[in-house]
Amino acid sequence: MSEIPETQVYPIIWQGDHVLLIDQNRLPADYTLVSISRSEDMVTAIKTLIVRGAPAIGIAAAYGLYLGAREIPTRDRQAFLERLEAVAEQLKETRPDKANLAWAIDRLMKKARNTLGAVEYLKQTLLESAQALQQADLQTCYAIGHHGLQALPSTPQQLAVYTHCNHGALAASGYGTSLGVVRAAWHQGRLSRVYAGETRPRLQGARLTAWECVQDGIPVTIVADCMAAHCMQQGLVQAVLVGADRIALNGDTINKVGTYGLALLAKAHQIPFFVAAPLATVDSQLPSGAAVTVEENPAADIYQIGETVIAPEGASFYNPAADVTPAELITAIVTEQGAIAPTELSTLISNAS
Amino acid sequence: MSEIPETQVYPIIWQGDHVLLIDQNRLPADYTLVSISRSEDMVTAIKTLIVRGAPAIGIAAAYGLYLGAREIPTRDRQAFLERLEAVAEQLKETRPDKANLAWAIDRLMKKARNTLGAVEYLKQTLLESAQALQQADLQTCYAIGHHGLQALPSTPQQLAVYTHCNHGALAASGYGTSLGVVRAAWHQGRLSRVYAGETRPRLQGARLTAWECVQDGIPVTIVADCMAAHCMQQGLVQAVLVGADRIALNGDTINKVGTYGLALLAKAHQIPFFVAAPLATVDSQLPSGAAVTVEENPAADIYQIGETVIAPEGASFYNPAADVTPAELITAIVTEQGAIAPTELSTLISNAS
Repeated sequence: MSEIPETQVYPIIWQGDHVLLIDQNRLPADYTLVSISRSEDMVTAIKTLIVRGAPAIGIAAAYGLYLGAREIPTRDRQAFLERLEAVAEQLKETRPDKANLAWAIDRLMKKARNTLGAVEYLKQTLLESAQALQQADLQTCYAIGHHGLQALPSTPQQLAVYTHCNHGALAASGYGTSLGVVRAAWHQGRLSRVYAGETRPRLQGARLTAWECVQDGIPVTIVADCMAAHCMQQGLVQAVLVGADRIALNGDTINKVGTYGLALLAKAHQIPFFVAAPLATVDSQLPSGAAVTVEENPAADIYQIGETVIAPEGASFYNPAADVTPAELITAIVTEQGAIAPTELSTLISNAS
Repeated sequence: MSEIPETQVYPIIWQGDHVLLIDQNRLPADYTLVSISRSEDMVTAIKTLIVRGAPAIGIAAAYGLYLGAREIPTRDRQAFLERLEAVAEQLKETRPDKANLAWAIDRLMKKARNTLGAVEYLKQTLLESAQALQQADLQTCYAIGHHGLQALPSTPQQLAVYTHCNHGALAASGYGTSLGVVRAAWHQGRLSRVYAGETRPRLQGARLTAWECVQDGIPVTIVADCMAAHCMQQGLVQAVLVGADRIALNGDTINKVGTYGLALLAKAHQIPFFVAAPLATVDSQLPSGAAVTVEENPAADIYQIGETVIAPEGASFYNPAADVTPAELITAIVTEQGAIAPTELSTLISNAS
């Protein structure tokens, strides 16, 4: 896959001795890079959503662990590992809802414990592991883009796709998962346009997906979420592409609220509905999505946009963060190992483990 | 129907010699009454959306015609009618998309032409006609509320309903059409809660429907539009109630964008979907919704909320004002003459005419 096009968007950049993060809170109005040299600043960056998206958070936290390790002055290996454990815990507590975070941190901690040698060598190993994680994630995104492109409808030659939220370069090492498929299709001349659902309440579609597309020259049209059905009815889109927070073994998919509704609308219009996500998103402890309880975000996300309060005092708010899309509504789950029917997922997972 | 409860919300009040309008642009932050004494000020009020909603605009314009008539100094009947015609045209041009406006103005102009007597008597007749129009609209809303209540599912005893946009007291003389059904259900102890979809991009659900509900003590929960499917999946709502901009003879319904998607989602969850609207909303020249072209609103509605710009430069926007819901997705159309299946609509209309 040597022809994979470069994207202009890399949310996490290792810059010799520090990390640069695109401040995603300030997009799309301002493009600002935040310099992070200490583990504590990475904790703050993750907590305040300067960096967001499950894979991106995992990578950022891995660099954070290295930055924390660098600050530990001891040359005693055991004392070092004990203090590193405290840094790891602090990072893991930033976003307990993101599986990739704990997964990345645990992987680096295991590497540290299993690596022989002096403390300085361990530190260097942690940095290399963080960089390797970032590289591997980029390769995963490229593979998802490639397999997703193959799974798209073969006609018409140029497709318009509808997306929700942001599972793009900004949410990963670069390139993205569902937007990785978009980039692959664009590069191959198979994409005419992205319809980006704005994704209330936090507007990741309007703010981030549209910004990414503009950076990479991909035509993007922003619509309010309630316009999706009308777009489908008018024949404006030929596929729906979304990401995933967590996927159950039967293929039921937990993702940003609004995903389930889009899946129902796509089915009603006989438009294929794709979930693009790395296999790391599959929760092998979760047989189905039926029993999943969705967390709620703060009401303020809904009632205030910038300085503008849009609702009266005395009203209540319901702000579920995610919803559950039953597997039967999903045309294919696009992973780095291929685009598969949801029913094939458990076999793929058990073969891989 | 003597038990119909009073609502606290009347958007248009005749106050002896002038009109008071609730400034709907300033809701929900500020409750402000705007005093209108001249026809020109009513033109501005309608154009700037101080008053909105098809029935409310019709009533406001009728009062505007009287205010214009009052300003005409001649006692010559023919000269008076000619100048009145110019006022009528000015009012009709404010919102050509709202059928009720032209209907109300035409009705008053016909009345003026057909009324014998001095110019002063004609002026008095115009005021009385505007007041009669307002009273008739209120009776229509009461009747829609009554019939809608009968059409709601009989179990559970207390229902939660999902609404979109604002077809409430604020959009009519008072009481409302789809919110008239809500008020009737609340008054009869049959309503537990309203889930108000915020209705992007102009947020009439969050701003206006929620405000109305709070004024009248009706429990209301605001959700982002993309949460509707999740609410249905969780069993939170037992009916969907919307209004209509225009209804074709076969029952296809043109209404605020987002209505069609809700109808599809309600069907997927086997939840009844009701359109509440006066029979004046039926366009007897329109056999079906198939050929309807939907107007587009300005892109700025989507990309800016208050002072906050939510999208990057370089993105495009698509902002359809309405969508078309096929009749087969509609459980019943609730009119002042009863709740009927969409297939019965053309018979009802031809019997009435």
